[in-house]
Amino acid sequence: MSRRQRPDYIPNKIPNDDTYVRILDTTLRDGEQAAGAAMTCSEKLAVAHQLAKLGVDCMDVGFPATNSKDAFEAVKMIAKEVGNNVDENGFVPVICAIARCVKGDIDAAWEALKEAKRPRVIVFIATSEIHMKYKLNKTPEEVLKLAKESVRYAKSLGFQDIAFGCEDAGRSNKEFLHQIYGEAIKEGATTIIFADTVGYNFPSEVAQYIADMKANIPGVENAIISVHVHNDLGLALANTLAGVQAGARQVELTINGIGERAGNAALEEFVMAVMTRGDDLLGGLHTGIDPKQISETSKMVEEFTGLKIQKTKPIVGGYVFSHASGIHQDGILKNKSTYQIMSPEDIGLDEYSNTSIVLGKHSGRHAFKNRLVQLGYDFDEKTFDELFFRFKEIADKKKGDGN
Amino acid sequence: MSRRQRPDYIPNKIPNDDTYVRILDTTLRDGEQAAGAAMTCSEKLAVAHQLAKLGVDCMDVGFPATNSKDAFEAVKMIAKEVGNNVDENGFVPVICAIARCVKGDIDAAWEALKEAKRPRVIVFIATSEIHMKYKLNKTPEEVLKLAKESVRYAKSLGFQDIAFGCEDAGRSNKEFLHQIYGEAIKEGATTIIFADTVGYNFPSEVAQYIADMKANIPGVENAIISVHVHNDLGLALANTLAGVQAGARQVELTINGIGERAGNAALEEFVMAVMTRGDDLLGGLHTGIDPKQISETSKMVEEFTGLKIQKTKPIVGGYVFSHASGIHQDGILKNKSTYQIMSPEDIGLDEYSNTSIVLGKHSGRHAFKNRLVQLGYDFDEKTFDELFFRFKEIADKKKGDGN
Repeated sequence: MSRRQRPDYIPNKIPNDDTYVRILDTTLRDGEQAAGAAMTCSEKLAVAHQLAKLGVDCMDVGFPATNSKDAFEAVKMIAKEVGNNVDENGFVPVICAIARCVKGDIDAAWEALKEAKRPRVIVFIATSEIHMKYKLNKTPEEVLKLAKESVRYAKSLGFQDIAFGCEDAGRSNKEFLHQIYGEAIKEGATTIIFADTVGYNFPSEVAQYIADMKANIPGVENAIISVHVHNDLGLALANTLAGVQAGARQVELTINGIGERAGNAALEEFVMAVMTRGDDLLGGLHTGIDPKQISETSKMVEEFTGLKIQKTKPIVGGYVFSHASGIHQDGILKNKSTYQIMSPEDIGLDEYSNTSIVLGKHSGRHAFKNRLVQLGYDFDEKTFDELFFRFKEIADKKKGDGN
Repeated sequence: MSRRQRPDYIPNKIPNDDTYVRILDTTLRDGEQAAGAAMTCSEKLAVAHQLAKLGVDCMDVGFPATNSKDAFEAVKMIAKEVGNNVDENGFVPVICAIARCVKGDIDAAWEALKEAKRPRVIVFIATSEIHMKYKLNKTPEEVLKLAKESVRYAKSLGFQDIAFGCEDAGRSNKEFLHQIYGEAIKEGATTIIFADTVGYNFPSEVAQYIADMKANIPGVENAIISVHVHNDLGLALANTLAGVQAGARQVELTINGIGERAGNAALEEFVMAVMTRGDDLLGGLHTGIDPKQISETSKMVEEFTGLKIQKTKPIVGGYVFSHASGIHQDGILKNKSTYQIMSPEDIGLDEYSNTSIVLGKHSGRHAFKNRLVQLGYDFDEKTFDELFFRFKEIADKKKGDGN
């Protein structure tokens, strides 16, 4: 579970470590698009500083062309402050903002981002038949032309680092995708984004899309493939992992998995899955994230967005290190790894305050006795049996976590 | 998205439809083991009735040998009431309870279940090295012997329907697994359960475990393979789907995904994933669940357990049919399928009260204008522009969902 060195970060150059997966956090853009999640400018700045501490490679922090003045100002402030805050290793995160294939959007992105040391614009357009026909009301030829012109325009403004994304790629024709990504790379895109915008894909499909992109896009060796997926069917994490297994080397995630509808893939889940199984199952894939910052980042985003995470939420939920059944409690007391594959301290929590043996109706004798001993009591077996009987009688009548 | 007919349900006979996936709900057993989730006897009975309405094939409703009197009584009551409530098609769900490989546990299960029309005991034992060594303090030979004796004992008591499960199978030696499952089938087990008890596996591993079980267990053609996984890494749903793709035909799920630590695979997510993509990606796999009961079941379990689901929870979260960004709102107003792969009415919600266009700082002109028209206002373009400007000024200052 060690953190390894980041590869070089020179725009337009492919890094020197093919097992390194770049983490793009989009909590401040796609995450904030969750209903009810709006944050103030100063809250966004605080989250951006925390994301830098967490070690994200890039952060997508907003849509500067939106009609919201506040949203523009937040991007500008983060670009200026966090985007110039070089750490002790000489690293500074890439600050990104999105733009439709519209000149005004790209202008706004440049205005908002230009003071960052490493600004990146994410230019996107929808490529599925349903989106082109009903939303954009454009032919594929028109969409292709707009994509090329927009990447070229972003370059002309001064962007050296340009990502090009296909919205609803997961329901798009593959030949068209390969063509449009290829043209974007030719115009200067160094990251190409596969987006399952509506959370429709299965892992096998995402893997096939990425493999086909690697095999068929002209010039793909000069770009990083990025995976951006939504969680409508509950498969966002599995799809992101399938993407990197097939060759994607950037993933787009949010803290606590917040985002439009059922949200995005959760950063903390991806990072801990890679940390737990990266070496044996994923050919040594690794990230630059400091997992000990996960808990604090999660709490900050929960507080600022007001989107409460459920107790069973993987990695950061309130009960994920709790054990309520007698059989599990007995195992944990004998050896933690019987029922726990991670530890609270891995994500920055205090071990003792967080691995909890919850006494209640499902608890067994071992856990009950252990708690009595911890509290300083020592009874003979007969007394203990009687106490345990009375404890269970009471527990049967109680609800809640018994603490 | 049609519901198809259930296959025959004769114990010890393999059903006549190989694309049918049996749903075993374990909300009342593994789900209730979530910290703080304890339910009263009457709450459990109400949930069991609702699960029958939802159309589950089997329900695991408790651990009768526990020291909790209430838990035993709940199993007995559900077996008697719900386990005899034959529906208009002549179907009655299987009522299950778990037992360790201990005679007293199996006796208690029989006592609690015997009044059900279709009682099933789930006999389990841990098979991973770490569980056998540290928790059970037994050799593999002793574990194998206990497993055989226990299945035989269950049969001798009167159980015709016996499931045998390997706890922590996902970290167990495969040869040992194949041997112990084979012996259990020989003694009369008709369901064999692969359990990733600690939520450690990746989908590729689960698929390989199931494929190897199908290829190597003597007599496996006489049993149904069941998948029971936990969500510690956020992969429970993907692992369950990988299991059925590899040949498992029973899945063990909970409502809202509640359960020990980060919970189990969520019933509503599995069912809707199969309904949405079963025909094109899963060879026509289908279940007997009535999805229109999902919302009501989810709300009941949320209320009785006190485990609140987060707003972005797939399928049943409060915001999963909400659209906050201007680009998405514009698409939804033009054609719903641009940004929505399911509808609220699919899971039993009212379409109009639940597909929501949330007006706020991310909203665009199209959604704002649409709302004004809905409210009966009609302005010229200039007045509209001024109103929109003022709306965005206010929205920038607001938090919350803007409604």
